[in-house]
Amino acid sequence: MKDHFKVALCQMRVVEDKNENITRALEIISQAAPQVDLVILPEMWNCPYETSLFPEYAEEADSSPSLGAISEVAKREKIHILAGSIPEKDKGKIYNSSFLFNPQGEIIGRHRKVHLFDIDVPGKIRFKESETLSPGDQLTVVDTPLCRIGICICYDIRFSELLRLMALKGAQLMIIPGAFNLTTGPAHWEALIRVRAMDNQVYLAAASPSRDLNASYVAYGHSMVADPWGTVIAEAGTGEEILYASLDLDRISQTRQELPLLKNRRTDLYQIKDK
Amino acid sequence: MKDHFKVALCQMRVVEDKNENITRALEIISQAAPQVDLVILPEMWNCPYETSLFPEYAEEADSSPSLGAISEVAKREKIHILAGSIPEKDKGKIYNSSFLFNPQGEIIGRHRKVHLFDIDVPGKIRFKESETLSPGDQLTVVDTPLCRIGICICYDIRFSELLRLMALKGAQLMIIPGAFNLTTGPAHWEALIRVRAMDNQVYLAAASPSRDLNASYVAYGHSMVADPWGTVIAEAGTGEEILYASLDLDRISQTRQELPLLKNRRTDLYQIKDK
Repeated sequence: MKDHFKVALCQMRVVEDKNENITRALEIISQAAPQVDLVILPEMWNCPYETSLFPEYAEEADSSPSLGAISEVAKREKIHILAGSIPEKDKGKIYNSSFLFNPQGEIIGRHRKVHLFDIDVPGKIRFKESETLSPGDQLTVVDTPLCRIGICICYDIRFSELLRLMALKGAQLMIIPGAFNLTTGPAHWEALIRVRAMDNQVYLAAASPSRDLNASYVAYGHSMVADPWGTVIAEAGTGEEILYASLDLDRISQTRQELPLLKNRRTDLYQIKDK
Repeated sequence: MKDHFKVALCQMRVVEDKNENITRALEIISQAAPQVDLVILPEMWNCPYETSLFPEYAEEADSSPSLGAISEVAKREKIHILAGSIPEKDKGKIYNSSFLFNPQGEIIGRHRKVHLFDIDVPGKIRFKESETLSPGDQLTVVDTPLCRIGICICYDIRFSELLRLMALKGAQLMIIPGAFNLTTGPAHWEALIRVRAMDNQVYLAAASPSRDLNASYVAYGHSMVADPWGTVIAEAGTGEEILYASLDLDRISQTRQELPLLKNRRTDLYQIKDK
């Protein structure tokens, strides 16, 4: 494991044409790659965020043109890539799935969004992922040469249990491809990112698509990285942008020594367990 | 239960003289009482926040001059009072304890801080409650004619498990007497209050002593109330102040209907249990 490494969050614009999205992702990754160890794409980077489109855009992992292209660029640039998420088809179901590639272009982790986003705020936003998607059924923590990485997707961040369990399993960096919207974004995005990082005393990197006011679902943007003290160390605006951040893993142990939150948990009073 | 009710958070200045603190609390409570149903005092409202003083200031609940005075004023003003916290002596141990009084002046709930605050940020702050205090051993949710109230104290708020369990036990308002400091206050206070409220979709009221730059432990102030959407609906400054807020319990069910967080928890993937 390295003590320090750099990440790039690609706040890319997602359009209707899948091939254009793939081409754009490869361009941005190649632009960021020379400066970083890990590139992160946003949620649904190859597909507009519309439930009706997920079946049409969905690909099977082992024959996926989108993932194949990412594998190639990971190998060529010799970097890790967290490929945001895509609609993934498997045995007749469709998942919102994130794939982690190593510098050899191999998939070393996969997270299927476990909490599907169903919201209905009258007059503001209505969206039901469960109309076309199925939920994943496991939490995801992956060992890499950089550090131990926990992955969850967008709405998953709202469930403190999931992120706590990832921390207890040793995650040092939590990556969250996410597309909050213009209702939940201003209200919740930054506070959630900061508090999940400060509660678990980990780095947290949340990558959003850029804001496109013409899309049917308008993403909030503001991709962000928080450190183990809960401080925002990098934040994007709303447009297309590559956001860079340097992570220092010593900050994790230092923070946990100063304020021993994980040690001070009263496990004699409460227990949190995965299945 | 009432649909609407009003609360007052007394961000009072705490001084060295215990009797002066009691007198001041009674004055502020009487001033706020005609306008509200519930008055909330801050953490350690009768005692400077210094570990070495807790044994000296500690009182046994059934013979406590501090609690006796609160009981009298609750009865006289016909209101509920959450008596922040005091050092409580019981069987040779000292606890950081919060007491809830009904309008008959009876104690209907008691929370003993379960997470003791031990922090050591070099050059900034060092404080170890565990030097003189013992931790409580249960979480506290109390039915009242106003609503179901969960109580925890200061550092307790940092542990998402505790507040989640209070929500699962039906707490609609969580009250947190708390004295964050000039290191943790600016970094964490507001974000924690907002996210615990938005995660659990409850009202959350956090009452701090006022800021006294001459005290050995300088409280942050900024007493605050957040609604179930995680919006700050009332916030104090740093000086002595009474902070008022109106709570509308319908906002809880409305928020939970719009964004069904508690229903969307994946209890097949994780479980959180108290002992």
